Amino acid sequence: MTERPLRLGLTMGDPAGIGPEIVLKALAELTGPAAPAGPELVVVGTASCLEQAADTLGQTIELVPGGAGRRWPEVGLDEAASAKAPVAAGKLGAEGGRLAYAAIARAVDLALAGTIDAIVTAPINKAALHLAGHDFPGHTEILATLTGSRGSCMLLVHDRLRVSHVSTHVALAEVPKRLTPERLGRVIELTEAALVDLGIDRPRIGVCALNPHAGEGGLFGREDDEVIRPTVARYQTGGLAIEGPVPGDTVFVKALAGQYDAVVAMYHDQGHIPLKLLGFQLDATDGRMSALSGVNVTLGLPIIRTSVDHGTAFDIAGKGIANPQSMLEAIELAAKLAAGRRRAGAVPAGQPLNA
Amino acid sequence: MTERPLRLGLTMGDPAGIGPEIVLKALAELTGPAAPAGPELVVVGTASCLEQAADTLGQTIELVPGGAGRRWPEVGLDEAASAKAPVAAGKLGAEGGRLAYAAIARAVDLALAGTIDAIVTAPINKAALHLAGHDFPGHTEILATLTGSRGSCMLLVHDRLRVSHVSTHVALAEVPKRLTPERLGRVIELTEAALVDLGIDRPRIGVCALNPHAGEGGLFGREDDEVIRPTVARYQTGGLAIEGPVPGDTVFVKALAGQYDAVVAMYHDQGHIPLKLLGFQLDATDGRMSALSGVNVTLGLPIIRTSVDHGTAFDIAGKGIANPQSMLEAIELAAKLAAGRRRAGAVPAGQPLNA
Repeated sequence: MTERPLRLGLTMGDPAGIGPEIVLKALAELTGPAAPAGPELVVVGTASCLEQAADTLGQTIELVPGGAGRRWPEVGLDEAASAKAPVAAGKLGAEGGRLAYAAIARAVDLALAGTIDAIVTAPINKAALHLAGHDFPGHTEILATLTGSRGSCMLLVHDRLRVSHVSTHVALAEVPKRLTPERLGRVIELTEAALVDLGIDRPRIGVCALNPHAGEGGLFGREDDEVIRPTVARYQTGGLAIEGPVPGDTVFVKALAGQYDAVVAMYHDQGHIPLKLLGFQLDATDGRMSALSGVNVTLGLPIIRTSVDHGTAFDIAGKGIANPQSMLEAIELAAKLAAGRRRAGAVPAGQPLNA
Repeated sequence: MTERPLRLGLTMGDPAGIGPEIVLKALAELTGPAAPAGPELVVVGTASCLEQAADTLGQTIELVPGGAGRRWPEVGLDEAASAKAPVAAGKLGAEGGRLAYAAIARAVDLALAGTIDAIVTAPINKAALHLAGHDFPGHTEILATLTGSRGSCMLLVHDRLRVSHVSTHVALAEVPKRLTPERLGRVIELTEAALVDLGIDRPRIGVCALNPHAGEGGLFGREDDEVIRPTVARYQTGGLAIEGPVPGDTVFVKALAGQYDAVVAMYHDQGHIPLKLLGFQLDATDGRMSALSGVNVTLGLPIIRTSVDHGTAFDIAGKGIANPQSMLEAIELAAKLAAGRRRAGAVPAGQPLNA
């Protein structure tokens, strides 16, 4: 079987936000005349929204229906839905939510059918989705529902710091209850598999403690000794290079120094605080995020999905000043994961992923 | 009244650890021939332990009993207790714990009597304290007991990032219960007072959310809306420049960019993870901490107390290779706090602090 080139679908996100703009900026950089050959890229979204974003940027693009692998200024587009009304930049609305959802749903179909190898998502707005009748907390829940998946987990990546999460969008008071041997084991296995896909043959994983000082022998909580330690020991016995529970205030220092290829964090802030601290920068003069780096990956789906690690930024939408850095990184990471998955033979090109 | 110079007492810490070594290294740097004039420094500890550390460093020192303000190689010493037996470097033991405790108790007496303006503590070992019959989780609890204080809080400082904690050494499951309007208010007030002591006239404080996304309108927990938001509003009404709840994954980015002079964190890892990530570095080749920066301050005591932000490091004790950076920073910060407190007239020199 001749393998076709890797092909990634980029969802445009909420068209009232910066999604279409950063998608086009990324395409201009990755498929322009000076760009080296890379995976085929196709935008999944709405033609009129992309043209509007191109106008904002002062660019003339040529949308090629279904045309993956085009070079800038040609842009391959899989039209997910056409707009019923213009979507104004920066304005939260139902039409933006409807079109954003349609792009995701279409991209999932393409990925499940094996037409694309991964999806890379631009930011959406939860309130806009809600106005459009799609009541989900975010991308992850949409993707889980559309693919019929359970037990996914969030992996954040910034340079060499990679952090997966045992829980994310739950109250802090719920976090200890979510930490079970089954859930922790699932996240460890998903993390290991992702690292292997990224080309790391023998991944080293640090598992973060739940409690300060890993519970200090039970003085500050028993979960570290009763759940994390035996689960980690089980995977050590299985041959995995894994350590834990490692106290939260040292595990990221060690990861940054190269001792781990990934850290498993127990809850949202534990993993997000170090990642965003390293990946985000704020302009001290105007208080705006001046640099954005980092990628959000959903593990445990039957499809590969990476995402930018920031929001719709309605405040700067339509101004042409959005930073595509995180989108570029998300595309690069999706390509690596897709190549790794294909290398492993898990996903023959052209075959559905969960037949 | 003629004011005497500021005078700081440096406890030697557990003599089996790196405490005496980093104290001497700091003194050599701060009181040596090339050093500018600074506060008077006096070591509180045990003569034989300091001499042993000086031997390790290949230095000849002259211990001057009670002699604050001496210049290197003279070292002012307030002998807290003499050793009953030699203390071997790197060996956990009861004698080390006994001498470490004696130094702290003596330093507290000196501070309460107004003989010194602040204490700066070198690291101790909890297990050694326990062997010596002093059953405390750490310095903070010893100091609270010895000064009869309640409601202290931990402030960590690294460069311009300052983070105080509503709770520290408790299980994560206990954290939401510790978050009360009274406790949060106390920590906000202690944080503001410390910033004023540091010379910041109108401190700006960011209060970290407890839950991800500050609870997302109650979807991920109600404490942010029910406890943090009204408490912050009360201090805003009182004229304080304070914001919150600010989500954990953005509040430290903002603080680092200069938007806040301090962050109030809700629990140990929330505050410790960003601080240690910025302050600690690990040598990738040998896995040892190769740089240590950061200071730990206990707020809410009747005395000023700063501390190094690392442990006894038994593994490198007695080798002469310990890094005194955190001790130097702790001394500098104690001097600033003491100067600020004196400037405010709260602590007349020579008077007891809590008569």
